[in-house]
Amino acid sequence: MCGNFYGIGVGPGDPELITVKATRILAAADVVIAPKTEKKEGSVALDIAKSYLKPDARIVYQVFTMRKGFADYPDGWEENARQIDEFLREGNEVAFLTLGDPMLYSTYIYVYRLLKKRGANIRTIPGVNSFAAIAAKVGVPIVEGDDVLSIIPATAPKEKIDRALDSADSVVLMKVYHNFDEIADILEQKGLADNSIMVSRCGLPDEEIITSVKERKNKPLNYLSTILARRGQKRE
Amino acid sequence: MCGNFYGIGVGPGDPELITVKATRILAAADVVIAPKTEKKEGSVALDIAKSYLKPDARIVYQVFTMRKGFADYPDGWEENARQIDEFLREGNEVAFLTLGDPMLYSTYIYVYRLLKKRGANIRTIPGVNSFAAIAAKVGVPIVEGDDVLSIIPATAPKEKIDRALDSADSVVLMKVYHNFDEIADILEQKGLADNSIMVSRCGLPDEEIITSVKERKNKPLNYLSTILARRGQKRE
Repeated sequence: MCGNFYGIGVGPGDPELITVKATRILAAADVVIAPKTEKKEGSVALDIAKSYLKPDARIVYQVFTMRKGFADYPDGWEENARQIDEFLREGNEVAFLTLGDPMLYSTYIYVYRLLKKRGANIRTIPGVNSFAAIAAKVGVPIVEGDDVLSIIPATAPKEKIDRALDSADSVVLMKVYHNFDEIADILEQKGLADNSIMVSRCGLPDEEIITSVKERKNKPLNYLSTILARRGQKRE
Repeated sequence: MCGNFYGIGVGPGDPELITVKATRILAAADVVIAPKTEKKEGSVALDIAKSYLKPDARIVYQVFTMRKGFADYPDGWEENARQIDEFLREGNEVAFLTLGDPMLYSTYIYVYRLLKKRGANIRTIPGVNSFAAIAAKVGVPIVEGDDVLSIIPATAPKEKIDRALDSADSVVLMKVYHNFDEIADILEQKGLADNSIMVSRCGLPDEEIITSVKERKNKPLNYLSTILARRGQKRE
C-alpha cells in the first residue's frame, strides 16, 4: 500500500512554533524531504524539525533550482517528484518540510501539484507565518478593525508594489533581501519608512530587528527578511 | 513578584493546530482568560485549549462587547484589563486565549495595549491563521511567485473592498458572516465567484466547505467564515 505525502509547515524559525500536528506526523515519518537551494549548505527547515523526527528517519535533501518566471518546472523538479513518488510506492510515510506556511509562497506548492498529478495521497499541515511571528516578537499589531492588509513579495514589479502599498492600511513585504535598498526608498517616498520594522531570521539564534529601514541601507541582508509597515501611525 | 501575561494564539480550530510553545505555556498558566461575546455561550478558543491546561487552572470568562467604530474602549474593557492586572500582581501566570493569530484582527490587540499601559510583562505567542488552515484543508495554494495577497475584512466599506480586490492577485475575505450576500455579489461582478471557495468553522466538528458562493446566498452563515479567491485561475 502506498504511503501518505505530508506537506509540513514547520513555522517561522523557533522550533517551538511548530504545531502539535506537525510534530505527531514528523514522529511517524519514514522519509523526510528537506528542500534546499543550490547555493546554501544545510536546511533551516530541517534544523527546526530535527528534534521531532524518529531516530531512524531517512533524511533526503532535494535541490530546487530557483529561476524567476519559469513557465514550466525548472530542471530537476520532476525528478524530485519522481523520487518522492517512489518512496510513497514503497509504502513510506513521506514528510516534505517547508518554512512558515506551505500554501504561502513556498516551493511546496509546485511539489504538491506534481505529486497530485501522480495520484499521491496528500495532506498539507499549515504553519505559523513569519509575519505573525515578527508581529508577536516586536509587539506590533498587524491589522485591526476594518484594516486591509497587503502581503507583497518584494520581487514583484515596482508598479505592482506601488499599487498594493497604496490600497492597504498595513503591509507585509516578504523576500526583501535582494532589492532592499529600492524597497526602503519606496517606503520613504510613501511616508511609511518611520512606520516600518524589519526582522531578519525571526526566532533563529542570529535574529536581527531593524527599526530604521533608512539606516539599514547598503548592507547585505539575509534571505529570511520581512518588513511590517502600517499607514498613519508610528510603530508602537 | 508579578506574573507574566501571555497572549496565546490557539490557531484556527483543530486542537492539534496549536503550537508546541502555546501548549507549554498553557500547561503552566495559573489563570486562563477566555474571551467571549455577549451573545454566545462558551468559548471556541477555550474548547481548543482546554486539553492542554493544568487541572487546577482558574478559568475566567471575560465579555468583550463588540461595537463598530468605537473611539475609546467599550464598556467593561478597562475593567477586564484591571482584573487581569490584579491576577498578575498576585503572582499568577495569566494566559489570554485568542483564535487564530493574536496580532491579526483580534480582541487581544486592545487588551495588549491596555495591559502594556499598566506596565505588565507581556509575551505574545503567534498562531496559525484560519486562511492558512483553509488553504491546507482544501488543497488550494494562496499565493506563489510574485502574487500580491490582500486580506480584507468583509466589514470594511464597499469602496475599500473594491480597491483591495482590484489591486491583488489573490484575496482572503474574513468575517464574511453578516454581509455575505453582498460580498458574493461583488465577487460575481468582478469575475471572481468561480475562483472562490468558502470555509466555515475550519477544523471544527461542524466545518462546512462551500465551493459555490453563488448558490450559498440567502442562508445564515457562521461567524467563523472565510473566503479565498484568486484572480485568473479556476480553483484547483
